[in-house]
This record gives sequence, structure tokens and C-alpha cells, in this order.
Amino acid sequence: MVIHNISSSLANSLRQRRQRLANLIDFPAILWSGSSSPRNFPANVFPFRASSHFLYFAGLPLPKAAIRLEAGKLELFMDDPSPSSALWHGEIPKREEIAQIIEADAAKPLTELEFCVAEAATIAVQDAATWTQQSQLLNRWVLPQNPLQGIDLELAKAIVSLRLTHDEEALTELRKAAGVSVEAHKAGMAATPNVKREAEVRGAMEGVIIAHNMTTSYNSIVTVHGEVLHNEQYHHPLQPGDLLLADVGAETEMGWAADITRTWPVSGKFSSTQRDIYDVVLAAHDACIAKMRPGVEYGDIHLLAATVIAQGLVDLGILLGNAQDLVEMDAHALFFPHGIGHLLGLDVHDMEDLGDLAGYEEGRERSDRFGLGYLRLNRPLRPGMLVTIEPGFYQVPAILNNAHLRSKFENVVNWERLSQFNDVHGIRIEDDVLVTQEGSEVLTAALPNDADTVENLVNG
Amino acid sequence: MVIHNISSSLANSLRQRRQRLANLIDFPAILWSGSSSPRNFPANVFPFRASSHFLYFAGLPLPKAAIRLEAGKLELFMDDPSPSSALWHGEIPKREEIAQIIEADAAKPLTELEFCVAEAATIAVQDAATWTQQSQLLNRWVLPQNPLQGIDLELAKAIVSLRLTHDEEALTELRKAAGVSVEAHKAGMAATPNVKREAEVRGAMEGVIIAHNMTTSYNSIVTVHGEVLHNEQYHHPLQPGDLLLADVGAETEMGWAADITRTWPVSGKFSSTQRDIYDVVLAAHDACIAKMRPGVEYGDIHLLAATVIAQGLVDLGILLGNAQDLVEMDAHALFFPHGIGHLLGLDVHDMEDLGDLAGYEEGRERSDRFGLGYLRLNRPLRPGMLVTIEPGFYQVPAILNNAHLRSKFENVVNWERLSQFNDVHGIRIEDDVLVTQEGSEVLTAALPNDADTVENLVNG
Repeated sequence: MVIHNISSSLANSLRQRRQRLANLIDFPAILWSGSSSPRNFPANVFPFRASSHFLYFAGLPLPKAAIRLEAGKLELFMDDPSPSSALWHGEIPKREEIAQIIEADAAKPLTELEFCVAEAATIAVQDAATWTQQSQLLNRWVLPQNPLQGIDLELAKAIVSLRLTHDEEALTELRKAAGVSVEAHKAGMAATPNVKREAEVRGAMEGVIIAHNMTTSYNSIVTVHGEVLHNEQYHHPLQPGDLLLADVGAETEMGWAADITRTWPVSGKFSSTQRDIYDVVLAAHDACIAKMRPGVEYGDIHLLAATVIAQGLVDLGILLGNAQDLVEMDAHALFFPHGIGHLLGLDVHDMEDLGDLAGYEEGRERSDRFGLGYLRLNRPLRPGMLVTIEPGFYQVPAILNNAHLRSKFENVVNWERLSQFNDVHGIRIEDDVLVTQEGSEVLTAALPNDADTVENLVNG
Repeated sequence: MVIHNISSSLANSLRQRRQRLANLIDFPAILWSGSSSPRNFPANVFPFRASSHFLYFAGLPLPKAAIRLEAGKLELFMDDPSPSSALWHGEIPKREEIAQIIEADAAKPLTELEFCVAEAATIAVQDAATWTQQSQLLNRWVLPQNPLQGIDLELAKAIVSLRLTHDEEALTELRKAAGVSVEAHKAGMAATPNVKREAEVRGAMEGVIIAHNMTTSYNSIVTVHGEVLHNEQYHHPLQPGDLLLADVGAETEMGWAADITRTWPVSGKFSSTQRDIYDVVLAAHDACIAKMRPGVEYGDIHLLAATVIAQGLVDLGILLGNAQDLVEMDAHALFFPHGIGHLLGLDVHDMEDLGDLAGYEEGRERSDRFGLGYLRLNRPLRPGMLVTIEPGFYQVPAILNNAHLRSKFENVVNWERLSQFNDVHGIRIEDDVLVTQEGSEVLTAALPNDADTVENLVNG
């Protein structure tokens, strides 16, 4: 439990958040923090991660706690540590102490929660011990996989409308996460010439995150096989002609996330084909960020990235035709099959525990188009929203060897020309971008992304 | 999924393990591997850790798989990856390929498991998705927290008798884990003079483990508050007079664990009081290891440690009286309140998912004595057993300020003399020791533990 790193504005920010919630719902809400999940035996647990909805309103990663929110008031429910736990875990802050820090209106032992559950909405926490408890106390099934209904759905919608844009308290944390992630990427680039395997670069990067007393906000991708989009293997050797793709982000002690991807040449020098494609991806990245401002549709940002990539590939002779037409027929998705990004906040895909409720504006649904179905965010941008911008280019065997896709796009791909780019397996450039009143601000801007500077960082 | 690092003897070792199981039980056993536990949302999971019982017989960390063992035969149940998963996860080895590696006698999709469950014993896996599946398929509650009964208990006892001693395959892995853990500790010592916080030392240590493509086998303890036995905070600054206690171990890709503790002076030099106590703990450590051989009771090793520590504290004027008598009245436990160690293997507390079934010889139970109750292992040593030896000295406020304990031990502690050792909060020295035919072998011997060499490692 963290009580050493409390911002002086925390209590005030929490009060504003619960007041804003009270403006949206007229029933009580109970949010549980969750408990540690066992790894290979009950006493050997994964590091505790509090539920993000709890963190948003309670501010602190308290295990086995719950808060009840009603009409702008917060009641904290948690048990004081047992006397014997002091032997193993030292002096743990007591309920009253925590209550004071977050300015709770009341603080009670967990056993009293059962008397305050009437008409209360909730959201399922991920660990089984806690959703079992939620279900028992509320006397109905509260399961992470169940679709939200009734007041639970109303509560979720209210929380989404709050968490969609970030207050100053959140931004301070998000900037910290971004800053440490930038340092981790620099360490990864600097380590590359001295090491032999992907895992060693990962060790250098995550070592920086751990040294800042943070965790990774998701399982890192550090791979010379960037064409495997969610690659979680780290055993491949680094060869001189390889590109290394690193998608690594830090999460602060209070739970706020960053999410950065860079792609760099193992040798410290891009080949000419690698640099050509890199510059296409970077052009898409820069065009998207330049376009961002309140009111712009994130779906249009995605289409802009697709168009810039298609145009770049036309210019390189890989795609044939007009960029606009190519995007309309999803030809870009042969090489850029995922969405341009997602919401970022307490979760790296923010509020994805609620399905598409946060990502998709009410009334909108996922497209079944090859080039649009993986888009995780489809809303107009608003000041205070934080999103990732992460265009990429990949040669995914499962796509490029797919007979149906090959025949569909037979006439718009110059396959022979493409074969000259065989040393480009996967490139992605990802930054964390805040929508501001005037346009946007890149929170991860301290990490260079132009090809020359990236080479210099690798070469030290 | 790991298929890049398979030992050539794996299939043969697995065959021997299942044959040995067949010699002990005459009913089928089904062991599930488990699935990833969600962290803050379903798609953001903790790193997958296969169940240790599954790993022991299947050899590979396969997610969402099961094996059926009967009469020395192994049937593998797992689904082939979906075509669409190739986009995200790349080419995943197919069932038939895995079956060949581990020389399974048959390989079938998971859906066929339901036709092979009659009369089968099992052991609950830790994640809820899997124990739900186990319960449904076997048509009875299979829960991690339920006491084992009937054939499940018989199966557990049979597995315990196998896993209690390690074969060559296991020892090869355990030596790898030990080797990387030694490197991690050296890196931690070397990093200490250059850093300001506990977290930075942890980053240096875990960075090494990650760089070797391993994980930590438990949540690291890296703290200047060694008196908090399970301290998982890393934010304290390092001060020149502090001792840093680091309890950090690696786990191989196949799941085998190491567990090492060292305690070193932040300044690179023990104070005279710190060195006095350090040498007492080291004397206990060395005496225990010298005593280890087949047939010796591990409980007696614990009492030996207690006696050496008591004698050392008598020699320093902290305890008063005869060491033997002091141990009988549990006076040593004021400063050494935990057990001398535990089994080590696929789990850092090996097979602790089965409660005390592995740790305690049949017919024995935990003592309720203050100085013995935390002993996790109470069996005669046998060749091939791997245990930790981890004596310590701690000034735990919850113990030393306890009125009942203070009055009970009033006449055997020189409290004034003790106050001269205020700069010693917690010291532990822990190594991994294999019982051999002749005596014992310290798998972690490459990491020095004498005070002079430890100082030198810190000073570089």
C-alpha cells in the first residue's frame, strides 16, 4: 500500500470527481478495489492491482476495500490489519488514517457494508474472490463477463463520461508515467548494441520502470518479429539487419498508464528500404497528430493514417492506384490491419472492462470492414481526452498469404516490388496524445521518433 | 509458449515421471494447466503461469491445456490456435507438434476431454476460469480452497512423493534458476553505491532476471526495513548506515524456481554491530548446511539454527543464559521468528497449494510453539530434496514491543545491550541446498555470503 507519495491536491480532486458523479446519477454506487490473484499457490500472488474505477474515486490502491458513493459523499469500507499481520507486513496504515488522506465522509469495517447495499449499483471487479463477494452482498450475479444492465449500466455510463477526459490530478500522474516510459525506451535503444537477445533489451527497459517504483501497464512487446502484433516472446537473437519493435509503457503507483512504441535498427542504421517504410509510418503519425483538435472524429484520424500510409506505399510502388480508393477498398489494411489507437488513462485501453461503452459513442458499433473492425475508439475528440496515435506497417504472413485477400487485392499490390522490402517485418510508432483546447499535446514528445535521432540514440 | 528451449532429455524424463506415478495410483488423473488471470481488464492479463503439477508431467507451459495420465500413458488435450489468432500471436505450435515434443500417447481437442473424465482424480488450479471448468467437467466442486478428499487426496500424495525429490531434468532447470539469481544479486550489490532508493536496486536485480528471459519466482523483497518479513514496498531512500535486505529469485521458462536472500551494507561497510550480528546469522547458516545429509530431520536443522543464533546472542551479551535452555523457551524466536526454510522446486514454497501435505511427514502437524509454528518443512531429508536454508535476525517492533513477550522473556534479554544494536533492523542469509547421497550441495554457492566478500561486491 502506498501512502508515501500522496499529492497534496488528491483529496480535493477526489471530492470533485464524486461531486461530478453525483450530478449524473441519483442512486448509490459501491466500488470494490479487488484482491490479489493467486499465481501458482494461494500465498504466491501476482502484484496487487486495484480496480481502475475504484482508483478513480478512492485515489489509493487499497487492497480488499470498498467505497460507497452517494450524493457526493464517500464512505470507506476496509478492515484494519490484524495484529499478527504486523509481523509479516509491518505497520500498515489504518482505516482512519486512509480516510483522512482521501477525506472520506465516513470509514467503517467491511462487515458493515452489507447494511448499505440497498439499491446500489456496482461494476464487477476482475478477480474471482471479489466478484463472488460482490454477488453475495448485492444478492445478484455480478460477473466481469456479464453484460451490464439497469443501474449498473447507468453507473458505467456516468463513470465513462467522467473518465473520458482527464482532470489535472490525472494528468500529473499520466505525465509521470509518460516520462518514465520515455526513459525506458532510451535505455532500450542504448542497450541494443551491447546485447544478443530481445530479452536483454526488455530487461534494460523494464529495469528502468521498476527502478522508478512503477510497473509495466501491460505485458511488454520487445521483438524482432514486429509483424506478430501481440508478440510476447523474447528469446529471439538480435541480428544486424533486424528492426526491433518495442511497445513498453509504465504505470504509476496510483495506477495511471503510458503506452509507447518505437522501432529501431539493431545495427544502429536503417537499411534504405527500412527507412523508406519508417518514414511513411512517421508521416502518418505526424499527420494524425497535426489534425487532432476538439470536435474532430477519431475515426477520421484513423482514415487519415490509412490514407497517408496508402499514399506512401503508392509512392514506393508497393500499392497501385489512388490512395483514397485504396483506403475505401481496405487495401491499406493489408499492411496496417489494426486501429490508429485507443483511449489511455487508468487502463492502457481505458475502460475496456466495459467493452465498447467507453470507446464507442452511443449508437455506434464496430464496423465489420477489414480495415475498420479493430478500431477501439470511435468518438469525436474532446479537450482532456488522452489517446494513443500508433500507425504501423507489418508484413503479416497470415494476411499476405491469405488466398482470399491475395486475390481480392491482386491488382493493387505490386508483389514483386513488395518483395524488395523483405527486411521490414513490422514497424510501429506510438505516442500518447492529449487533446487540448487549441489542438493537441504529445505527452511522450521527449522521446524522439525521427529516423536519424533514433539511430543516434541506438549508437549512443 | 516456449518451444525454443527444449532439453533433449525432456520427453524421456516426462515418461519416467508418469511411469513412477502409475506405480503409485491405479486410477486416471487429469491435470489442467490453467489460463491467464485478468489484471485490470480481461484483455490485459498477468503473465501466464501454468500449474506446477501440470508442468511436472507435461514439461511445457501450455495455456488452456490438460493432460490425462493413466497407467504411464499421457493424453494431451488442447485446441489448435484459431486462424485469426495468427494475426495477433503469430504461428503458435499446433497440438500435434507439442504432442511430439513431449511424446504424448495421444493428442485431442479440448472438447473431447469430457468423454474421458470418468473416475478421474484432479487437483484444483488457481485461476477461476479453470477451476470452474474442472468443476463442470468432473461434475463436482473442484476449488483451490477445498480440502482434498478421496482419489484427489490420493493423487496429491502420490505427486508429493514424486516431487519431493528432484530428477536430473529438474536439477538442470533449478541450477539455471540459481545461476541467474546469483547474477541478479551481484548486480544489486554493484548497483547500490550509485543509487538512492530501494526500487533502483530492485530494478537492477530484476532487470537481470528479465534479460535472461526468466521471471521472478515470487514478489521480490528489496528493503532497508528487513524487519518487515514480507515487505513489498520499495520507496524508501538508502541511507549510509542502512543494511539492505534483498530476497529475490528467478524462475526458468519451464517454471523452476530459485530463492536467495543476501543482506549488505548500503555504504559498502558493515558497522561493527552489524557485522557481529551478520556473523551470528552466517554461523547458523553454515552450521545447518554442514549438518545436512539424508536421514537428518529438517526440524532438527531448524533447532540447530535456533541454538547457534541463541549462542551467538549470548556471546554478544544480548541473551542471557544457556543456548539450549533459551531455545527450549523460544527466546531465539524473539529475533528469529520464522522457520529455517522450505521445499523448493516448481514452486518457491514447493507444493504449498496442497497445504502442509508436502511439507509435513504424514502424521505430523504444525507446532503451536512460538518458535516452531512457522516451520514449513518437517520431514527427514532425502537425497534429491532441495530446500532453502535461511536463518535471520530481526528487530520486529510487533514482537519486541509486545507486552506479553517482553514480560515472558524479561530475564533472558539484556535490553540495554540490545539497544546498542539499533542499526540492525533485519538480516537474512538464504541459500538453496540440495540433499545429496553424501551430504549436501549449495546450488547458490557462486554467490559469496561472508561479510568481507559481500562488502567487496558492493564496493566493486
